Amino acid sequence: MQMPSRRTRILTGAAVLAAVGVSAAGAIAVAAPDTGVRAAGAPASRTAATGTVATDHLSIAAAAKAAQAALAAAQKADQHVSVAVVDRNGNTVVTLRGDGAGPQSYRAAEAKAFTAVSWNAPTSALTKRLEQAPTLKDIPGTLFLAGGAPVQAEGAPIAGIGVAGAPSGDLDEQFAQAGVAALNG
Amino acid sequence: MQMPSRRTRILTGAAVLAAVGVSAAGAIAVAAPDTGVRAAGAPASRTAATGTVATDHLSIAAAAKAAQAALAAAQKADQHVSVAVVDRNGNTVVTLRGDGAGPQSYRAAEAKAFTAVSWNAPTSALTKRLEQAPTLKDIPGTLFLAGGAPVQAEGAPIAGIGVAGAPSGDLDEQFAQAGVAALNG
Amino acid sequence: MQMPSRRTRILTGAAVLAAVGVSAAGAIAVAAPDTGVRAAGAPASRTAATGTVATDHLSIAAAAKAAQAALAAAQKADQHVSVAVVDRNGNTVVTLRGDGAGPQSYRAAEAKAFTAVSWNAPTSALTKRLEQAPTLKDIPGTLFLAGGAPVQAEGAPIAGIGVAGAPSGDLDEQFAQAGVAALNG
Amino acid sequence: MQMPSRRTRILTGAAVLAAVGVSAAGAIAVAAPDTGVRAAGAPASRTAATGTVATDHLSIAAAAKAAQAALAAAQKADQHVSVAVVDRNGNTVVTLRGDGAGPQSYRAAEAKAFTAVSWNAPTSALTKRLEQAPTLKDIPGTLFLAGGAPVQAEGAPIAGIGVAGAPSGDLDEQFAQAGVAALNG
Amino acid sequence: MQMPSRRTRILTGAAVLAAVGVSAAGAIAVAAPDTGVRAAGAPASRTAATGTVATDHLSIAAAAKAAQAALAAAQKADQHVSVAVVDRNGNTVVTLRGDGAGPQSYRAAEAKAFTAVSWNAPTSALTKRLEQAPTLKDIPGTLFLAGGAPVQAEGAPIAGIGVAGAPSGDLDEQFAQAGVAALNG
Amino acid sequence: MQMPSRRTRILTGAAVLAAVGVSAAGAIAVAAPDTGVRAAGAPASRTAATGTVATDHLSIAAAAKAAQAALAAAQKADQHVSVAVVDRNGNTVVTLRGDGAGPQSYRAAEAKAFTAVSWNAPTSALTKRLEQAPTLKDIPGTLFLAGGAPVQAEGAPIAGIGVAGAPSGDLDEQFAQAGVAALNG
Amino acid sequence: MQMPSRRTRILTGAAVLAAVGVSAAGAIAVAAPDTGVRAAGAPASRTAATGTVATDHLSIAAAAKAAQAALAAAQKADQHVSVAVVDRNGNTVVTLRGDGAGPQSYRAAEAKAFTAVSWNAPTSALTKRLEQAPTLKDIPGTLFLAGGAPVQAEGAPIAGIGVAGAPSGDLDEQFAQAGVAALNG
Amino acid sequence: MQMPSRRTRILTGAAVLAAVGVSAAGAIAVAAPDTGVRAAGAPASRTAATGTVATDHLSIAAAAKAAQAALAAAQKADQHVSVAVVDRNGNTVVTLRGDGAGPQSYRAAEAKAFTAVSWNAPTSALTKRLEQAPTLKDIPGTLFLAGGAPVQAEGAPIAGIGVAGAPSGDLDEQFAQAGVAALNG
Repeated sequence: MQMPSRRTRILTGAAVLAAVGVSAAGAIAVAAPDTGVRAAGAPASRTAATGTVATDHLSIAAAAKAAQAALAAAQKADQHVSVAVVDRNGNTVVTLRGDGAGPQSYRAAEAKAFTAVSWNAPTSALTKRLEQAPTLKDIPGTLFLAGGAPVQAEGAPIAGIGVAGAPSGDLDEQFAQAGVAALNG
Repeated sequence: MQMPSRRTRILTGAAVLAAVGVSAAGAIAVAAPDTGVRAAGAPASRTAATGTVATDHLSIAAAAKAAQAALAAAQKADQHVSVAVVDRNGNTVVTLRGDGAGPQSYRAAEAKAFTAVSWNAPTSALTKRLEQAPTLKDIPGTLFLAGGAPVQAEGAPIAGIGVAGAPSGDLDEQFAQAGVAALNG
Repeated sequence: MQMPSRRTRILTGAAVLAAVGVSAAGAIAVAAPDTGVRAAGAPASRTAATGTVATDHLSIAAAAKAAQAALAAAQKADQHVSVAVVDRNGNTVVTLRGDGAGPQSYRAAEAKAFTAVSWNAPTSALTKRLEQAPTLKDIPGTLFLAGGAPVQAEGAPIAGIGVAGAPSGDLDEQFAQAGVAALNG
Repeated sequence: MQMPSRRTRILTGAAVLAAVGVSAAGAIAVAAPDTGVRAAGAPASRTAATGTVATDHLSIAAAAKAAQAALAAAQKADQHVSVAVVDRNGNTVVTLRGDGAGPQSYRAAEAKAFTAVSWNAPTSALTKRLEQAPTLKDIPGTLFLAGGAPVQAEGAPIAGIGVAGAPSGDLDEQFAQAGVAALNG
Repeated sequence: MQMPSRRTRILTGAAVLAAVGVSAAGAIAVAAPDTGVRAAGAPASRTAATGTVATDHLSIAAAAKAAQAALAAAQKADQHVSVAVVDRNGNTVVTLRGDGAGPQSYRAAEAKAFTAVSWNAPTSALTKRLEQAPTLKDIPGTLFLAGGAPVQAEGAPIAGIGVAGAPSGDLDEQFAQAGVAALNG
Repeated sequence: MQMPSRRTRILTGAAVLAAVGVSAAGAIAVAAPDTGVRAAGAPASRTAATGTVATDHLSIAAAAKAAQAALAAAQKADQHVSVAVVDRNGNTVVTLRGDGAGPQSYRAAEAKAFTAVSWNAPTSALTKRLEQAPTLKDIPGTLFLAGGAPVQAEGAPIAGIGVAGAPSGDLDEQFAQAGVAALNG
Repeated sequence: MQMPSRRTRILTGAAVLAAVGVSAAGAIAVAAPDTGVRAAGAPASRTAATGTVATDHLSIAAAAKAAQAALAAAQKADQHVSVAVVDRNGNTVVTLRGDGAGPQSYRAAEAKAFTAVSWNAPTSALTKRLEQAPTLKDIPGTLFLAGGAPVQAEGAPIAGIGVAGAPSGDLDEQFAQAGVAALNG
Repeated sequence: MQMPSRRTRILTGAAVLAAVGVSAAGAIAVAAPDTGVRAAGAPASRTAATGTVATDHLSIAAAAKAAQAALAAAQKADQHVSVAVVDRNGNTVVTLRGDGAGPQSYRAAEAKAFTAVSWNAPTSALTKRLEQAPTLKDIPGTLFLAGGAPVQAEGAPIAGIGVAGAPSGDLDEQFAQAGVAALNG
């Protein structure tokens, strides 16, 4: 098997959002959580000869950098939030409970990050999916509330960043996207 | 008590769906989760003389075959899903977390399978029941989202197959039904 | 302190329902979960001199009798259900998982019984309260779905009986009320 | 760092409610859970020189006093309730399960207190936020039902008081606010 | 496949205990949880032609009878206990919380029943296995404490009866065995 | 049925301990958690004519008084503890998280109280029972660690008081017993 | 970074066991869960340039093959077991509940697999570590009982296979190792 | 009340350990988790005039710095670990799942941190306490395994740092102490 080049381009959440905006014209595209995203052969998930698959994850250094960037963005806006980074397998890899963040924000941030990586889309976009499929939000571990952003490597979701605690989910999501953006800095 | 012949006919989910479609004319039939289905004397649940009841379950060989068939159907359609088979008592008997399936898909597949066997109907049909009884979905362990299909033996639900991870629940349910169909192959 | 006579009159769920029907004219009465019901000095909850309060509970003999009666009513109607009796403190005291009952029915029966005793009303009546207060159903341990009936002693709720598994909650509740009725048999 | 005077003024829930009413004119202010409330330098959360932050909590004496006052208010109104006080970190510090309170009231009171301190607003006001953001209520540990009131120190939420068990959430919240008021008594 | 005669002989726990005593001579037999017990072709688990397996369960009538007998035996001895019956799949089918039983007894009874059916032996015998394998008791859901007895059909465990609340586990187990014995009465 | 006089004598934990000391001569008496304690007809649990049983509970006023006394005793000794009162059904009725108490103390106090009421003995005495029956401590919800004391009414356990957070369990238990003693003050 | 050839050699559990046997001479080697095993640069965990790490996982095809092989080995020995495969992140990827397996076996198999991959050693070897560090077994999710075997890729643990239900953990582990061996077949 | 200077001296875990070593001569001192440590008036917990108590917490900046230092120390030693920081209230404030850390390490690190802050001592010292009080380790949320270190402000525990995943708990604890040391850097 040929290994792809490792210079993975990490898309910012903003780019994802843009794509979502565009595909909103097509009505269905947002609803597709990961079509074309984890296709066989994509670098983020490669089938190896002897029964193993290699998958890309954020290094802890990168994940911590993203989380810190999200927190810093919130602090700059005088908001008190918690931040979480969840990997593609749904395991939490970094959490930061910000000074003065409400007690609900810790689990909320984790759940938003989990949701963003599960469907490879910002949670602000995903909440719109509930109009068609309102019971999606009953899947254990998910939270369909703005504030989560996916981290992608060549289109595939490799992590989610979740932020909670600001007065609105849209603010939370700006901070989450600042975290994603830091990965390309 | 006379024991029925054991050549149990296993209905495909498609057949179930058809029945649901037909009974939709009768308005109530879908809503009846298991009326006429587990009636006394039906082969899938027989009362024995000395205080025991014999119930039919999928063998692990059959359950694994069904799960693999569901996964194969998803792979053929380039979808990344998890698959679960749950028995009539609500216990999970097989799980397969497909390559690249989102982290939410594992528990979602289990819950869909649990729901399908609980009401002996595909979960796509069951979601419609929420219009009349919206709090049905608050029963612990259930998920009223397309992607689950019951396995029947002479009309009684003996297992449920759940699939999750595709862009839509309808796709998930096609794969689940491919799993059911494999039991008659 | 003078102890009240112990010939506690246990109202059937049907009587409760009637009361609910009547009070529906008053619009608010149903919504009042326990007003006038656990008033100080009522026999079901008596304050004793030295810091203790005496509360009435169903004996296990009575609770089991009620549960068996509920199950028998379901069996007579060819329905496969689970039955639970929960005491006034929310602790389950009897469960019966009927032959052929769906796996979801066990926890559903417990939750219905818990809900009925919590608000001293049949759960069919309680679901109507969700129109005014939709988040009531988010209280942990509750299930706002027909099939639960309270057991009362001099107006106070001392237990709840929950039934689940029949094609409709109304059927489930008929069986639960048969259980309550058996306490006066 | 200069330490502020410690004569923290504790606002009653009623005052908070008033503020909420006023800000309802501004449409957004209620929605802001803690803007301006936990700003850096505010006495309730002070950054210290060497990496520590000092935060204000109710003493157990004050918390117990507030809980007892809430319970007493309910008893005076012949209502049977449970009361909980939760601190700013989401940890329960006092619970009182009142005589004759329904079994659902204990966890409900905790969840209401948790919710009130999380968003620094009475839960009656917070339920209105669900119109804009219905999935807020899916955040683990929260309950968007009237009956919770925040305790504030110089504007910052330092605790929540939750009451449950009365026929209506509005009654519950009156009792919770009586608890808050006792802190200024 | 030829169906065996249904006159299943249900061994009493006493008989099991005797067998354990005897097999103690053979050193290994007790340690073998289910060797020879669930062998292929044994009536309690029959492989059917088309992918289904038929397994024997206690009917709810029989299970309730056994539970009542266990409780009656305890009451006769002036002991306050809870009783549980768990089926071969680990699902609880009957519970009875006896008058005056300690609050710990309910979950303890369930766990003892689960353990007895899991290893097809009285829990008093199983506690001895901990000498060789002390971490057996860390398996979720188990309790290695006297008071659980298996119900067998042709040697296979089809249910477990657990009793808890008496001053000693040995007493608890006598009552559990009275429950098993009632199945042959 | 003749109702006993209600002048219930509440024994202090110290008295219980003494009894335990004495009965240690009899070797078995300590091991008997509630023999003779909840016997039929004992005032703390009376069978009524029509299927109800009346049980004594601490009023919330008494329970809160006991908890406050336990906390005060700890404060007097400059110890930082949490306190819990659990009723005879295992439900927590009062909790107080003392200023500066370690975070582990809250759940520990609840578990100690639960254990004390379950076996009607101080947890310091119960830990000795583990020599004979080491797996007793695996019963869900229990903690066999000094610091819990039962509250009795005519010999029957009607509540447990648990304290945790002091440097030794023996200190914790002194404070718990101060709580019990306050009920006779 | 240079990518290693992907022809990962997967060691059988037997080989691991041998290594453990040998290193037992060195006293410390067994105790070292992953020394030298996940060293930087090892193929199973590669740091990529842009903040991502690639890790090897079993493909679902390989994992299912291993699980089926483990189950087949048990069936050949007339044993009734459950099988689980857990990936390097602790997520379950395959489960098979064998016909007639005890109800405890399902969670036990998962926990053994989790434990084997956590410490990169067969659980039979790990139980010996408890002599030095008895509280290791208190880590959530673990089970220190023979029956788990790691799957390695170039020395690093990439999965664990757990088997439970046979009369002894050693038998369970033979079957688990048969599963590992199948990956090299 | 006079506010103390805020130049809190944060002791390293090593210093704590030394103190423990010394006090081991006194036999009892180690066993005392927090005597003299959270005494009234100590800066880390001050009673304020109006019913509030001010407590010191690590700022998120300091907590993250400590966690990063612990992880860096492990990486320098080629060990793969997870790190957690838990505050004095038991709430997790930072987590870092290191590259290649075993899946058990995440929860283990949290539990070690929780334990260290609960008793204000390194967990290596606390494991020795189990000789006297073996059931201490049954307190929910604790893990008595080397690898946790307290962070102190003027003697009071304000946080705990936990590390897990290295071949021995002693190594884990070295890294945790490196995290504590960084707070004084």
